[in-house]
Amino acid sequence: MKTPAIVINFKIYKEVVGAKGLELARICEAVASETDASIAIAPQMVDLGFIAEKVSIPVFAQHIDTGTAGAFTGFTSVEAVAGSGAVGTLINHSEHRIKISEIDELVQVCKKQSLITILCTNNLEVSSACAMLKPDFIAIEPPELIGGDISVTTADPDIVKNTVTEIKNLAPEVKVLTGAGIKTSEDVAKAIELGTDGVLLASGIVKAEDPRKALMDLVAGLK
Amino acid sequence: MKTPAIVINFKIYKEVVGAKGLELARICEAVASETDASIAIAPQMVDLGFIAEKVSIPVFAQHIDTGTAGAFTGFTSVEAVAGSGAVGTLINHSEHRIKISEIDELVQVCKKQSLITILCTNNLEVSSACAMLKPDFIAIEPPELIGGDISVTTADPDIVKNTVTEIKNLAPEVKVLTGAGIKTSEDVAKAIELGTDGVLLASGIVKAEDPRKALMDLVAGLK
Amino acid sequence: MKTPAIVINFKIYKEVVGAKGLELARICEAVASETDASIAIAPQMVDLGFIAEKVSIPVFAQHIDTGTAGAFTGFTSVEAVAGSGAVGTLINHSEHRIKISEIDELVQVCKKQSLITILCTNNLEVSSACAMLKPDFIAIEPPELIGGDISVTTADPDIVKNTVTEIKNLAPEVKVLTGAGIKTSEDVAKAIELGTDGVLLASGIVKAEDPRKALMDLVAGLK
Amino acid sequence: MKTPAIVINFKIYKEVVGAKGLELARICEAVASETDASIAIAPQMVDLGFIAEKVSIPVFAQHIDTGTAGAFTGFTSVEAVAGSGAVGTLINHSEHRIKISEIDELVQVCKKQSLITILCTNNLEVSSACAMLKPDFIAIEPPELIGGDISVTTADPDIVKNTVTEIKNLAPEVKVLTGAGIKTSEDVAKAIELGTDGVLLASGIVKAEDPRKALMDLVAGLK
Repeated sequence: MKTPAIVINFKIYKEVVGAKGLELARICEAVASETDASIAIAPQMVDLGFIAEKVSIPVFAQHIDTGTAGAFTGFTSVEAVAGSGAVGTLINHSEHRIKISEIDELVQVCKKQSLITILCTNNLEVSSACAMLKPDFIAIEPPELIGGDISVTTADPDIVKNTVTEIKNLAPEVKVLTGAGIKTSEDVAKAIELGTDGVLLASGIVKAEDPRKALMDLVAGLK
Repeated sequence: MKTPAIVINFKIYKEVVGAKGLELARICEAVASETDASIAIAPQMVDLGFIAEKVSIPVFAQHIDTGTAGAFTGFTSVEAVAGSGAVGTLINHSEHRIKISEIDELVQVCKKQSLITILCTNNLEVSSACAMLKPDFIAIEPPELIGGDISVTTADPDIVKNTVTEIKNLAPEVKVLTGAGIKTSEDVAKAIELGTDGVLLASGIVKAEDPRKALMDLVAGLK
Repeated sequence: MKTPAIVINFKIYKEVVGAKGLELARICEAVASETDASIAIAPQMVDLGFIAEKVSIPVFAQHIDTGTAGAFTGFTSVEAVAGSGAVGTLINHSEHRIKISEIDELVQVCKKQSLITILCTNNLEVSSACAMLKPDFIAIEPPELIGGDISVTTADPDIVKNTVTEIKNLAPEVKVLTGAGIKTSEDVAKAIELGTDGVLLASGIVKAEDPRKALMDLVAGLK
Repeated sequence: MKTPAIVINFKIYKEVVGAKGLELARICEAVASETDASIAIAPQMVDLGFIAEKVSIPVFAQHIDTGTAGAFTGFTSVEAVAGSGAVGTLINHSEHRIKISEIDELVQVCKKQSLITILCTNNLEVSSACAMLKPDFIAIEPPELIGGDISVTTADPDIVKNTVTEIKNLAPEVKVLTGAGIKTSEDVAKAIELGTDGVLLASGIVKAEDPRKALMDLVAGLK
């Protein structure tokens, strides 16, 4: 995945159920193609293979349960994600936190399967801790700002800046995304200016009245 | 879903990753078509929409997390399952147990979305309790026999018989499946003879040397 | 435990930390002794043995994790509860729901250890299901009313009445408590009138300005 | 807590139920008193206040659920642990892993309540990550050696040595314990020699034929 990047988490909003999810994926693909911006998507888990087959932009899983294929029902393995055509996965999203030993195991197994890991964190301390586990990306998202109207880059630029500094210091190879409340080109431009490699967002696009227009606006902030 | 039925849970075995899962789904579809047997499948969660789009037999989710679409990441809603083209879902599989209040909520919400519910149970007492929640199917599977070499119908025919009797008594509209160790036409025939409406199985097909042959054998037991 | 009974769940409110929890337990004991009412308490888990040793009224655990003693850290076994001097345990409280197969196992193991089980439920359907598992008590508490100002007996007397009827029909040996919003002698009197064997409450006593007075008032409703 | 220290996790073994747990606590207290060794214990959760009241050696909780007192049933708050007379708590034991954001929160809240935190980890990577969260102690225990016959100091001295080096490098104020399979004075001596501040063990004492003798032997290794 080229950086700077815009990663869109579809969550399980009603706006992405069934054909609507595929439609949104295609809008993202069209904008990426027209603007040459790096845009990736994380569709609903049940749509992962369905959408990965149909679009050419990078597709991520929203979550992964286990590093081991086997006799588990209704969970998702690293192999299943790789086999679905996805290029990577979110890990430890604020709405789906996992144990620290699981994070460590999943990051290692994803590396072996060449899956890109985006490890979500909630503050500077946890970001520093997670840097030691060497994911490809750390996405810092203060939970109290997720889904809100004020972007993290406006509400708390220091947390972004300090996280970037700390991670570059502890593990320079780990890239940084930021999220929570990202909605405009200014938010994206500010995130890049603060030293991140892109943004992770959800409602700003999924719940936009005109997702294509909203995405075009975000992309403008990448320049 | 017509009964008696054979429901095949793909779990997340390595044998169903990516293209292999679709191939197995197509084998099931072919056998169903050739024999006119009622065969349903539960693919990996990440393949649900992908496979449901490509086969004409009933497709089930292996699990469902919530009755509510919304700001949840990496979970699966009832709407997401319905939107993926699946006709129903397993609930409370032995490898993915959930809370009793969640079972109650999910069964109710699935009913509203016209999704078929197969509620998995582990013994007579839990089956009786679950009958009061009125799922479409109860699938009784003693956990100690799952994945093993002796079928529940051989090892413990009484648990199957008593469960059928008790459920017919408490909630006559609820159908009964049984599973655990089911591998042969005799196992299927015995399950039907004990009063069930079919079988739920996984490794007996997924890990069979020749899944098509194994499935043809099972189907013979339906007659 | 004699019925009708008043069971007081201390939860982990700040009002019951350390010496304050013991003080409240002693108030409950004093009121029980003065009025001859049947009053039981469920202190914080870490205070279970500490308080059970010091008061003569029945003490319950708020939760139980496993039927098996062994190499588990930070969990609570049935044996640990029995060994602490408690006479029983809440199971599946609205704030600590567990899997249906666990409920079944825990109720059975508690029976063997002669521990009284109070199984908490949220509606009529789940109460009916739980009746099939044969706990000593079912405590029906609509979650939306817990901690609120309107008691379940005022807000929804039918859920109490129908639960009593249904449980007496399915499992006549199972006793019924009700809870949520219980605060006054009228609430208690109404609960008894609706056919229950007592009440389960928390904030109404724990957070009362004068817990002794609040409890004396509740006891008046038992007559 | 003075270091080097021996911390004994009682788990929920049948050998520590009820009066037996108190008896073991008193043996630990007697050995500490006779030898002037630093010995701490982590009794069953339900016995925490009961035992903390009766012995003068440091008592730890085995687990903690939340930093917030309130309307939670059957969980354990930081305040509850502090109020029980315990001096600290294990966090994230191998048998009770928690989310990384919870670890961060609990370590911070424990600091405010002056509770000592012993944060358990499973390998070098997770230990490094946890060092960034600044607990008082990190206890490195490879899960595959827990409860076994070969001590971590024999089976994998490098993991202990490297963890000590890495933690001293990242967060010099964080002390290190090690555990898993510790049984003899040699194991303890080796742990100290490798740079740790003590050991964390369970079955080696709890399941010893003569716990007093086993503990005297361990203490000999501290010199």
